[in-house]
Amino acid sequence: MTRETSASVAQGADGPLIPVLAVVGVGLIGGSAALALRRAGQVGQVLGVGRNAQSLAQAQALGLIDAVATPEQAAAQADVILLSTPVGGLAAILAQLRPHLRSDTVLTDAGSTKVEVVQAARAALGDRIGQFVPGHPIAGAERSGPSAADAGLYRDRTVILTPVPENAPAATAHVRDLWRACGARVIEMDAESHDRVLGSVSHMPHLLAAAYMAQVANADDAALRLSLAGSGFRDFTRIAAGSPEMWRDIFLSNRDALRTELTAVRGVLDQMERAMADGDGAALEEMLLQAAQARRNWRKE
Amino acid sequence: MTRETSASVAQGADGPLIPVLAVVGVGLIGGSAALALRRAGQVGQVLGVGRNAQSLAQAQALGLIDAVATPEQAAAQADVILLSTPVGGLAAILAQLRPHLRSDTVLTDAGSTKVEVVQAARAALGDRIGQFVPGHPIAGAERSGPSAADAGLYRDRTVILTPVPENAPAATAHVRDLWRACGARVIEMDAESHDRVLGSVSHMPHLLAAAYMAQVANADDAALRLSLAGSGFRDFTRIAAGSPEMWRDIFLSNRDALRTELTAVRGVLDQMERAMADGDGAALEEMLLQAAQARRNWRKE
Repeated sequence: MTRETSASVAQGADGPLIPVLAVVGVGLIGGSAALALRRAGQVGQVLGVGRNAQSLAQAQALGLIDAVATPEQAAAQADVILLSTPVGGLAAILAQLRPHLRSDTVLTDAGSTKVEVVQAARAALGDRIGQFVPGHPIAGAERSGPSAADAGLYRDRTVILTPVPENAPAATAHVRDLWRACGARVIEMDAESHDRVLGSVSHMPHLLAAAYMAQVANADDAALRLSLAGSGFRDFTRIAAGSPEMWRDIFLSNRDALRTELTAVRGVLDQMERAMADGDGAALEEMLLQAAQARRNWRKE
Repeated sequence: MTRETSASVAQGADGPLIPVLAVVGVGLIGGSAALALRRAGQVGQVLGVGRNAQSLAQAQALGLIDAVATPEQAAAQADVILLSTPVGGLAAILAQLRPHLRSDTVLTDAGSTKVEVVQAARAALGDRIGQFVPGHPIAGAERSGPSAADAGLYRDRTVILTPVPENAPAATAHVRDLWRACGARVIEMDAESHDRVLGSVSHMPHLLAAAYMAQVANADDAALRLSLAGSGFRDFTRIAAGSPEMWRDIFLSNRDALRTELTAVRGVLDQMERAMADGDGAALEEMLLQAAQARRNWRKE
């Protein structure tokens, strides 16, 4: 189901990997990629595309991009276009790019969901869908915007590509090389698996943390509760502080996978509640032990 | 509902606050209190009581206790008895202590729930219930056992006392002074409020994190999921690694408050699921915004 590619990036003797890169949405994700590629000497010119002129000016002042471009200019000039806008806005920007797109330009995205992104890309790009290699760098930070960009953001992180059948092997390889040049390891899987897995280990924690946090905040004695919350609460709820707009998009985009997972989580909660109601300490302890062992065996810290 | 006591601890000119302290269950919680009181010069002799001889020997070797004692010896000799055993074992140890208890000994506990503890104490102590001042130091760590004891564990942390009507003011004040000498701030509330509030901000995160972790661990593709889990997952699930035995006791002991809270959390999850099903981005964003704002405004980090 997954396939890891581990060969090192070939450094082109005759120029950078990407002569002209266009980044659509120059915030944490796109800005960090531009910085990392520049530091690796793998990009020539970086064009910045976006709707917020102030944010683009900041990106240019910070050296993330060389120049501001319109979608039309980016489509005509770029060798690679990295779409790092929120998932909800992807269809619109692809439709803007499509009429001006060179046939040898490779597009990729950084969206947190992939099934809906591929559907939107197919609808927007039509027979050019083979130029779009769907991707998802699993990296992020509490901060956002151009000032949060960090050349080291992708170092030793995982990027998942979910190629479509129409992708030429060279197009997929080009995007793989892009992320490897940023220091990431790159794996491939199908879009459905991506959305199920990320729905489980990324989106579901956010859903649960946000629902819980909203419930606490709406309690009559919320102030008292929050005044007595400690370090367990702190870590458990940290992700609930994330961008409401971004997570709204992710939840809507991945709703099918998320609802399947939520049903499964509810099932375990039902079991635990039943064990509590029955005073069945052995059953409760067995479930808690399973959770504790799985967490203790998880070696990524 | 709460009453904070903020005057500083009076340092006795004529000897320590507690000439003889008995600690029942000399692990992280009890051992840290003993160390802190010793460092503050507020304890004379510390007796250690427990079922695990090896653990008691370790506590003595580490200087947490001066001597090992039986429950009978502790009841006859101690001025203060701190019960820092798991909640589930409290009734049995109180019943052991009761026949030998001096009339001027003050008992207190460190249990994570209070309604059931008070019931158990009433049943075990009978007309001596006034000697028992229920307490809960809100502190803890991933580690446990005598070797985890830390004189600074309670510094600037909160201890909640839930006095019963039979407690003489002097008994409550004595326990308050004990915890203040450990560096903690002490507040008072009724046992029902304690269990509702802690059920919400301490027990519920653990319940949700454990149920979620068990669900992920039981998925057919658990290994793939866990290999792609990142920093959000890490923080969200950290508490799920906690002691299954301890949390089993807490969940059973506080099941009434927990089930009320769980019903409320399920209600918010229902709302979010409905918003996803309806494609209602505005409703979803509103709930996420409420959660994000509440978390961002929580100032304890």
